[in-house]
Amino acid sequence: MIVRPPSNWLRMLFVWNGSVLKSILPQLLLMLAISTLAVVTDGRILGAKIPLDTAPFPLMGVSMAIFLGFRNNAAYARFVEARQIWGRILIASRALVSQARSYLPPDADGFERQLFVGRLIAFVYALMHQLRRTDPAPDLQRYLPAEEVQQLLQMQYMPIAILDNLRLMLARAVRHHQGPDLLLWLLDSQVSELAAACGGCERISHTPIPFPYGVLVHRTVYLYCFLLPFGLVDTIGAATPLVSVFVAYTLFALEAIAQEISEPFGIEPNCLALMAMTRNIERSLLEQCGEPLPAIAGQRGPYSFH
Amino acid sequence: MIVRPPSNWLRMLFVWNGSVLKSILPQLLLMLAISTLAVVTDGRILGAKIPLDTAPFPLMGVSMAIFLGFRNNAAYARFVEARQIWGRILIASRALVSQARSYLPPDADGFERQLFVGRLIAFVYALMHQLRRTDPAPDLQRYLPAEEVQQLLQMQYMPIAILDNLRLMLARAVRHHQGPDLLLWLLDSQVSELAAACGGCERISHTPIPFPYGVLVHRTVYLYCFLLPFGLVDTIGAATPLVSVFVAYTLFALEAIAQEISEPFGIEPNCLALMAMTRNIERSLLEQCGEPLPAIAGQRGPYSFH
Amino acid sequence: MIVRPPSNWLRMLFVWNGSVLKSILPQLLLMLAISTLAVVTDGRILGAKIPLDTAPFPLMGVSMAIFLGFRNNAAYARFVEARQIWGRILIASRALVSQARSYLPPDADGFERQLFVGRLIAFVYALMHQLRRTDPAPDLQRYLPAEEVQQLLQMQYMPIAILDNLRLMLARAVRHHQGPDLLLWLLDSQVSELAAACGGCERISHTPIPFPYGVLVHRTVYLYCFLLPFGLVDTIGAATPLVSVFVAYTLFALEAIAQEISEPFGIEPNCLALMAMTRNIERSLLEQCGEPLPAIAGQRGPYSFH
Amino acid sequence: MIVRPPSNWLRMLFVWNGSVLKSILPQLLLMLAISTLAVVTDGRILGAKIPLDTAPFPLMGVSMAIFLGFRNNAAYARFVEARQIWGRILIASRALVSQARSYLPPDADGFERQLFVGRLIAFVYALMHQLRRTDPAPDLQRYLPAEEVQQLLQMQYMPIAILDNLRLMLARAVRHHQGPDLLLWLLDSQVSELAAACGGCERISHTPIPFPYGVLVHRTVYLYCFLLPFGLVDTIGAATPLVSVFVAYTLFALEAIAQEISEPFGIEPNCLALMAMTRNIERSLLEQCGEPLPAIAGQRGPYSFH
Amino acid sequence: MIVRPPSNWLRMLFVWNGSVLKSILPQLLLMLAISTLAVVTDGRILGAKIPLDTAPFPLMGVSMAIFLGFRNNAAYARFVEARQIWGRILIASRALVSQARSYLPPDADGFERQLFVGRLIAFVYALMHQLRRTDPAPDLQRYLPAEEVQQLLQMQYMPIAILDNLRLMLARAVRHHQGPDLLLWLLDSQVSELAAACGGCERISHTPIPFPYGVLVHRTVYLYCFLLPFGLVDTIGAATPLVSVFVAYTLFALEAIAQEISEPFGIEPNCLALMAMTRNIERSLLEQCGEPLPAIAGQRGPYSFH
Repeated sequence: MIVRPPSNWLRMLFVWNGSVLKSILPQLLLMLAISTLAVVTDGRILGAKIPLDTAPFPLMGVSMAIFLGFRNNAAYARFVEARQIWGRILIASRALVSQARSYLPPDADGFERQLFVGRLIAFVYALMHQLRRTDPAPDLQRYLPAEEVQQLLQMQYMPIAILDNLRLMLARAVRHHQGPDLLLWLLDSQVSELAAACGGCERISHTPIPFPYGVLVHRTVYLYCFLLPFGLVDTIGAATPLVSVFVAYTLFALEAIAQEISEPFGIEPNCLALMAMTRNIERSLLEQCGEPLPAIAGQRGPYSFH
Repeated sequence: MIVRPPSNWLRMLFVWNGSVLKSILPQLLLMLAISTLAVVTDGRILGAKIPLDTAPFPLMGVSMAIFLGFRNNAAYARFVEARQIWGRILIASRALVSQARSYLPPDADGFERQLFVGRLIAFVYALMHQLRRTDPAPDLQRYLPAEEVQQLLQMQYMPIAILDNLRLMLARAVRHHQGPDLLLWLLDSQVSELAAACGGCERISHTPIPFPYGVLVHRTVYLYCFLLPFGLVDTIGAATPLVSVFVAYTLFALEAIAQEISEPFGIEPNCLALMAMTRNIERSLLEQCGEPLPAIAGQRGPYSFH
Repeated sequence: MIVRPPSNWLRMLFVWNGSVLKSILPQLLLMLAISTLAVVTDGRILGAKIPLDTAPFPLMGVSMAIFLGFRNNAAYARFVEARQIWGRILIASRALVSQARSYLPPDADGFERQLFVGRLIAFVYALMHQLRRTDPAPDLQRYLPAEEVQQLLQMQYMPIAILDNLRLMLARAVRHHQGPDLLLWLLDSQVSELAAACGGCERISHTPIPFPYGVLVHRTVYLYCFLLPFGLVDTIGAATPLVSVFVAYTLFALEAIAQEISEPFGIEPNCLALMAMTRNIERSLLEQCGEPLPAIAGQRGPYSFH
Repeated sequence: MIVRPPSNWLRMLFVWNGSVLKSILPQLLLMLAISTLAVVTDGRILGAKIPLDTAPFPLMGVSMAIFLGFRNNAAYARFVEARQIWGRILIASRALVSQARSYLPPDADGFERQLFVGRLIAFVYALMHQLRRTDPAPDLQRYLPAEEVQQLLQMQYMPIAILDNLRLMLARAVRHHQGPDLLLWLLDSQVSELAAACGGCERISHTPIPFPYGVLVHRTVYLYCFLLPFGLVDTIGAATPLVSVFVAYTLFALEAIAQEISEPFGIEPNCLALMAMTRNIERSLLEQCGEPLPAIAGQRGPYSFH
Repeated sequence: MIVRPPSNWLRMLFVWNGSVLKSILPQLLLMLAISTLAVVTDGRILGAKIPLDTAPFPLMGVSMAIFLGFRNNAAYARFVEARQIWGRILIASRALVSQARSYLPPDADGFERQLFVGRLIAFVYALMHQLRRTDPAPDLQRYLPAEEVQQLLQMQYMPIAILDNLRLMLARAVRHHQGPDLLLWLLDSQVSELAAACGGCERISHTPIPFPYGVLVHRTVYLYCFLLPFGLVDTIGAATPLVSVFVAYTLFALEAIAQEISEPFGIEPNCLALMAMTRNIERSLLEQCGEPLPAIAGQRGPYSFH
């Protein structure tokens, strides 16, 4: 995730980082070559004139526009939903800590609040590492006893196992203190919210946008662009490479960015800043408990901003 | 459901599996024949020149774009909603298992937790088989007593009957252990969530997108494509088959993929991976209970990935 | 509501039932006459040449596309919402029956379960008949005592009156059996859900899409189509009737289908299958109670499929 | 709000009431004058030929289409949300009356049910009059004691003050009768729902669509239309006024209708029928209490249909 | 936020304030210069004719339209969601005050209602100042004791800390008065709603629309506009500057307004009126408590209307 202050309109035209220019450069150079060739040969391939003008392109553009618009919207909807789910994780874990602090009796009496909050934070890290397919052990060890970590590492559905442990703690605490039923309800519903968020992440992560859309968009865009110079060369001559590369840039870039954000839990520059968000939840929960805060996730180091 | 890692941009142009190319090949060959004929005869049918140029096509394209865009969006919305409902089934059954384990006393005392979880899993299988119109008996027998299976097989609304049995178990367990009312509420609301998910699936399955949209899209797309070569041949001559087949490919493919995903519970390659999702729920619930997990649904065998 | 299996692509081109062709046939014949006239007179009216070409049509098409797209989406959103509300009615009445069976003591003791379920079914029929403006008496009489039916027939808000009676039954049953408060809450919330569904149906039924949209779409589409032959005749000559009627067909049909589904509780072929859905709810509730099921709503007879 | 039965397709072309033609007639006449002038002078202004053809108009049309489509969708979303909120008011007040009747002991015992329902109806009238900026006193006096009305008239947030009074009545009634806690919860949540609906109305009423959209749409549409005759005159000559006025009609009308429905609580013909909806709520609540119903809001008189 | 009455259609054409004309004036003047130059040099740069006509612009327009439409919709969705969240804050704080007044015993007995409402108002101010990055101290001091303010100013998540204090007050009050569990639930759920609103604001504030969209839109729009005069000059000659500047105005303005509202908590003229909304909440809560109201946020002074 790239977050930067809005720039001057002129500077925005020449930004390098944060555009997807890097990842589509090879294809653009190929386009430049093709369109230059078309100008030089006056639209011939192996001596044979390609009999195109601009008329067919709007016809090809209809379905391309539908594909691109649809796929972009679907990808962004996944991105937004993923972000909202992580927002719900922040909200529910804060509520759980606040409610435990306000309504459950102090630690001395059986309910280990520190372990409770530790497990909560461990859940968030476990979910993040599962989504990113990275090793959760180092982060879990900061908050959980070594043997619990060992046990968890063998689970297929690790975040759920941690939540089940949290729920057992709550059940025991409320029963032990003769806490009112309703307290159980209050705390249980936050645990359920966290489990629902976990299920939502699994859904987004396991079910991509149906595969053929990607193939169709891709083929339509590339064939459209590769034909374009031969359609333009008779009309605009030497300006063909400029227009062709420009059109190709916008289309390739739109496809590339939609591809990136359609997998919001990935590690591309425009995916969600999962690490930073996890660290933010950790910091907020620790502040609620009056504990010292770890450093903010920065642009470098293990908790860099993506 | 086809899940595969993103490929190189070049390879994506030549993917065969996972595109819908297979299912629209006959029509594309017909288009190739028509457009080649148009080139050969210079746009004549039985000697009579078809007086078309490209001008009318954008006019025909307006309603076609509206139809295609609308139908595609409506189909995808059905796909996404169906997927979300199965996500809710996963979330609610996990919650039910976790709550039963945390709050209901151990099995010895009347509440048979194993049968409870078995019925839960049986519900998911029963729903899947009902949606796919396949035989649920083998899967039910793995978790339910033979006579119960016999009885269920005569029901019209089998998943609902299983949920009603689940609710009766809960009512008995809570009453027997003098459990607090609120516990009943907690568990009952998860059963209601499962029943709501079942109702949602029935709704999607029984109420398709209104039929005339399909007819209209189909006719518009095919007539548009069959006229296209005669409109293009005067302008782009020998390039007519290339452009015509390309335009037809994108339009036919968009119609075909929208058709497939508009029935997300079907068995086409791009429908939801119901079997795999059901097996995933089964595995997660069993892990929560500390039971050994059955194999993941693979690309082959009875629980292959669609 | 027309539900039919997907057909072969070729047969779909010539389907008669289920397209809206029937209802727009007169206008299409008029279009055929106008465009044939334009060809015969070479674009003259009373000898005066109409000086149109294709250039103005894309300009007229901009607002037409916005109108048609918007109205179609708004109409479909109403259709989908109406269907979802009926899904919620199914879900809530099933939950009510299941909860009453699991948590309320047997009938002998004051709570008449059969009357309860009967009133529930009567509510659904009353709502359906109110939305369709048909006579509810015959269906009510199958489940309610004659005098209650008489009383209900004088009410302005009949479904609400039935629900109020249901709530009174529940209040009495819970109070009588010293049932826990929470039980009241569980059952009351399902009654509230049914009342909310009823209010939602009234909203959709009483508040159409703002009237001017219909007028504007209609005028734009018809004027556009009636001018079209005069714009095309100079360019495509004898092909004018083909293209004009084709364009008119897609536009008229889109307007007609959007009109039909924008009133989802109506009796046009593409409105919701209210009767079949009501019968389905009846069957499901009766099966939950172990009662014999009435016949499925078929294509004929009083509960035919619309 | 204009509600009328669907008409014949031919008559729809010539409807006068309910189209927005009235409000945009001056601008259309101006367009007629400009385009006639363009024909007469052959596209000259003060003798100087305006060198336009149709080519630039599609370029200008891109952003115009985005503006118009966006603004229309945003306006309709506000209209639909406002309608849904009033639907929720109907649903919540019905539920409150039904629950009070079923669960709260009869009036004699401290809880004045008639005053309770009166305040409920007064809340709806107070909200309507606040949104329309009309005088609520006459309607309040029909249901509330004179001194309470006096007191309310000095409040800035009158509907909220009435709801606070309702909540106090409930608190007292439940406490007095040793009613169970849960009853309080049931009734309180309906009052909260009404307060949320009130807050929703305030939000829609106080926060319009950002102002610049209106300005931009307006300028784009008008400049586009005023340039149009000069772009068309060389191509279509004498048909220029017809096409220009037609295009202008659709664009002006789309802007006008979007403007009207973007303020759904206003008093334009296409705003919500607030008065009729309020009267409908009043009638439904009174019928639930067995009281005689006031007349339906008609097309005339103080409760006319807008 | 600019709120003004709808004007006459003619005056709307010449509004200065409230359009975004001011912020894009330099770029428009540059466009005027470029297009005038193109006319003067007849489309030459350094003597070399730029071989463009209008044909390539619709091709470039496809992706531009998708970008602009998408970004505008995404920006407006953020604006609407942000506004809805502030609506929820108003609704939840009103409910909390009303419930505390109705259900919690009078102040004398341990629960300091005045401090409670003060903290509630302080929460809203703290959230507003955090989102705007302004100093909350003066506003907090009006409602909180000095030492509490000092303590809060050192917190990273100040609004959450205030809510945690609120929850502690409620826990103590309910426990002290032997209040029923359910009361706790009622009040706690409103505090959770406020915390959820706070989390929602943080989400919108911290996660912008993915950066590349802004870059792509910007580049596409500007390159499109700068090429435009050279494409138009051969066709429309002297009218080139008029059309070019007009097209550029609509595109630049659409980009600028989307940029502004995509950060709804900012201080641009079209961002949300956070100050006025905060003051409105303060006024409503104080009126509920019977306290004197502070002045409405006006167009000037510290609580001016943005």
